[in-house]
Amino acid sequence: MSKTTVALDAMGADQGVAPVVQGAAELSMDERHDTEVVLVGDAHAIDRELRELEHRRDRLHIVNAPSFVSMDEKPKVGLDDKPDCSLLTAAELVRKGEADVLVSAGNTGAVILGASRTFERLPGVRRVALAAVHPTVESHGPKNDPFALMLDVGATLYCNADDLVAFAIMGAAYSRVISDIDCPRVGLLSNGSEPHKGTPAIVEAHARLRNIRGFEFVGNVEGLDIPRGTCDVIVCEGFVGNIVLKMLEGVSEVAKELAKIAYGQRLRYKLALGMLSGGIKQIKELTDWKQYGGAPIVGFDHLVIKAHGRSNARAIRNALKVAAKTVERRLADQVRDGLAQDRSADGAS
Amino acid sequence: MSKTTVALDAMGADQGVAPVVQGAAELSMDERHDTEVVLVGDAHAIDRELRELEHRRDRLHIVNAPSFVSMDEKPKVGLDDKPDCSLLTAAELVRKGEADVLVSAGNTGAVILGASRTFERLPGVRRVALAAVHPTVESHGPKNDPFALMLDVGATLYCNADDLVAFAIMGAAYSRVISDIDCPRVGLLSNGSEPHKGTPAIVEAHARLRNIRGFEFVGNVEGLDIPRGTCDVIVCEGFVGNIVLKMLEGVSEVAKELAKIAYGQRLRYKLALGMLSGGIKQIKELTDWKQYGGAPIVGFDHLVIKAHGRSNARAIRNALKVAAKTVERRLADQVRDGLAQDRSADGAS
Repeated sequence: MSKTTVALDAMGADQGVAPVVQGAAELSMDERHDTEVVLVGDAHAIDRELRELEHRRDRLHIVNAPSFVSMDEKPKVGLDDKPDCSLLTAAELVRKGEADVLVSAGNTGAVILGASRTFERLPGVRRVALAAVHPTVESHGPKNDPFALMLDVGATLYCNADDLVAFAIMGAAYSRVISDIDCPRVGLLSNGSEPHKGTPAIVEAHARLRNIRGFEFVGNVEGLDIPRGTCDVIVCEGFVGNIVLKMLEGVSEVAKELAKIAYGQRLRYKLALGMLSGGIKQIKELTDWKQYGGAPIVGFDHLVIKAHGRSNARAIRNALKVAAKTVERRLADQVRDGLAQDRSADGAS
Repeated sequence: MSKTTVALDAMGADQGVAPVVQGAAELSMDERHDTEVVLVGDAHAIDRELRELEHRRDRLHIVNAPSFVSMDEKPKVGLDDKPDCSLLTAAELVRKGEADVLVSAGNTGAVILGASRTFERLPGVRRVALAAVHPTVESHGPKNDPFALMLDVGATLYCNADDLVAFAIMGAAYSRVISDIDCPRVGLLSNGSEPHKGTPAIVEAHARLRNIRGFEFVGNVEGLDIPRGTCDVIVCEGFVGNIVLKMLEGVSEVAKELAKIAYGQRLRYKLALGMLSGGIKQIKELTDWKQYGGAPIVGFDHLVIKAHGRSNARAIRNALKVAAKTVERRLADQVRDGLAQDRSADGAS
C-alpha cells in the first residue's frame, strides 16, 4: 500500500455524522496530503452530508454500517448487540489490512473494548493505554509544541510496574513520532520527586525506567509539573490520569466562565477585553487541546486514535492527519522495538 | 478555660519567625477576638520581632524552644534528634490542656508525625487526613464561601473504605463549623459518577456513605467537579489528593505567568490590563487559597492546623482565627459524634 488509508468510524459522535464527514471532506481537499479515508457508517447519511460539501471523491470511500454504539450505551452490551456496528466494521478493515489505522469519535469505552476484541496486543504489553495531550506553559521539541502527552488517562485504571514501564516506552515512541523529539523526557507522576515516593508499582517502575534507553527518564514528577510541562511524557495509572484530565477540562471551562462573567459586568471590561482579544485568543488556543487531534490508544498491533466526542470538523481533520502520520512514520514498529529492547535488557540483567 | 488559647509553632516556616510572629501580633490587636496565642520557638528571636510590632502583650505568651525541624529534613530523623523542638513543645502544651489547638507553618510531614506521636486518634479513626480548601466557581454555604474542602491531600496515601467514610464524616463536620453549612454536600472522587466506578475501596465507601446521616452524600464526583465546586467536601485518598492539589497550585502559577507574558508584550495589553485590574484582582483573590487559613489535620483528639510554609502574616492570622473557631464551635465533639453515629449505624445494620 503506497498511500495511507484511514478507517474512520463516522457514527456515534456527540453531533452525529455531520462534523465527522466534514472533517474527512476537508482533508480530501488538502493538497499537502494524499491520505485516503474510508468513512464507515450509515451510507445514506454520509452521502447526504457529502453532497453539501466540497470534497475529492477519489480520496473518500464509504462502507455501509448503519448501526452504532451510542455515548450512553454500556460498551459490552452495545458491542454484543451490534456486531456489525460502524466501529467494529472499521476496526475489521484495519485488521484485514484494507486500512492502516482506525479513528473514532464515538463512545470511548466501546472504542477500547472494540479494539481489544479485534486487534492483538503487542508482545510485552499486558494492558493498553489511552494517551492524551494537554496544554503546557513550556513548549516541547523542535516544533515548540505547546502540549505534552499523558498516559494512561482511563483505559487501565490500576497498573503494575510492567504496565507503567510499557506506557513510558509507548508514550516516548508516540512523542518521537508526533512531536519530532529525538529523546523525549519521560516523567512518572507521583506524590514527590524522590525515588521512594509513590505506590509500590511506581517505586518499582522508577527503578526499572532508569535503565531503559531511547528516552530520558527524568524521574518522578508532581502535580504542578503537569500544567508547567516540565517533561514531554507523563506516565500514570488510568484512575489518576482520568481525574487529572477531567480536572484540566474543568479548569479550562472555569477560565472561560470567569471571562464571560467579567465580560458581562461592565462596559470598561468590554473595552478592555476587546483590546486584549489577541492575547486571549492565544491563551484559548493554548488550552484548547481538541485541536491536537485526539488521543491515541497504544498497545495494540494497530494504532487507534480516539477523537473527542465533541470534535468539530477541524478536530476530526487533525485526528485524521495525526493518524496518517503515525502510519507513515511507523509508530507501531518504534513501539515494538522499544518494548523488545526493554525485554532484552531484562534478560541481560 | 474561658478564652481560647492557640499554641503556635513559631519556627520552621519558609521565611522564618518574622511572618509567624507578625500574624500573631496582628491578631492580638484585633478587638473582635479575645484569642490568646502561645508563641513556641526561639524566645530571643520572637522577642526581637515583637519589639518592632504593634501588639497586645497580655494576649501573647512565649515559650522558649529554639530547635526545630527544617523543611528539607526527614520528619522522623528531625523529630528523633530534637525531642525539644518547637513543634513537639507546642503539641505537648495542647496535650496537657495548656492550649486548645495547634498551628504550625513548618514541615508538613513533621507536623503530621509529631501530632501522631503526641495526640490520640479519635475512636473509629484508623488514619488521619490532611484537608485543604481549594477555590471553586460555585460558592458554598450561607457565607457564599468561594472554596470547598478536599481530604485527604497527603497524610494517608492509600485508603480503605473505613478511612474514606471517616474522612467524609470529619470533612462534613469541618465544613459545618467553618462555613456554617448545616448539611454539607459530600462527594467521593472517582473516575465516573456511577456507584460501581472506582477502586474497591471507593465502591464500598460509596455504598456505606449512602446510609450515613449528618450530611448529604452526592455520590461519586469527577475531576471537573473540583474547580466547579459542585459539592462542599470532596473525599479521596492522599495519593490522588496530593497530585490534584499540587496541580491546582501549578494551574494558579501558570495563570499568573501567562498574565505576566501578556503584560510584557505590548503597550495596549498594559493599558487593557490596567482597565481590567479590578477583575483580575478578584480572580486572583478567588484562586489564592492561602488566605483561607491553612489546612486542618483531622482525626486526632486535638485539632491541628497546618498553615502553608510560604504563609505571610495575613495567612498566619487567618490560620489562628480558623483554629480558634474550631475550638469555640467544638469541632472535636462534632467529629466524635459523627463517627459514633456511623459505628452505631453499623451495629444496627
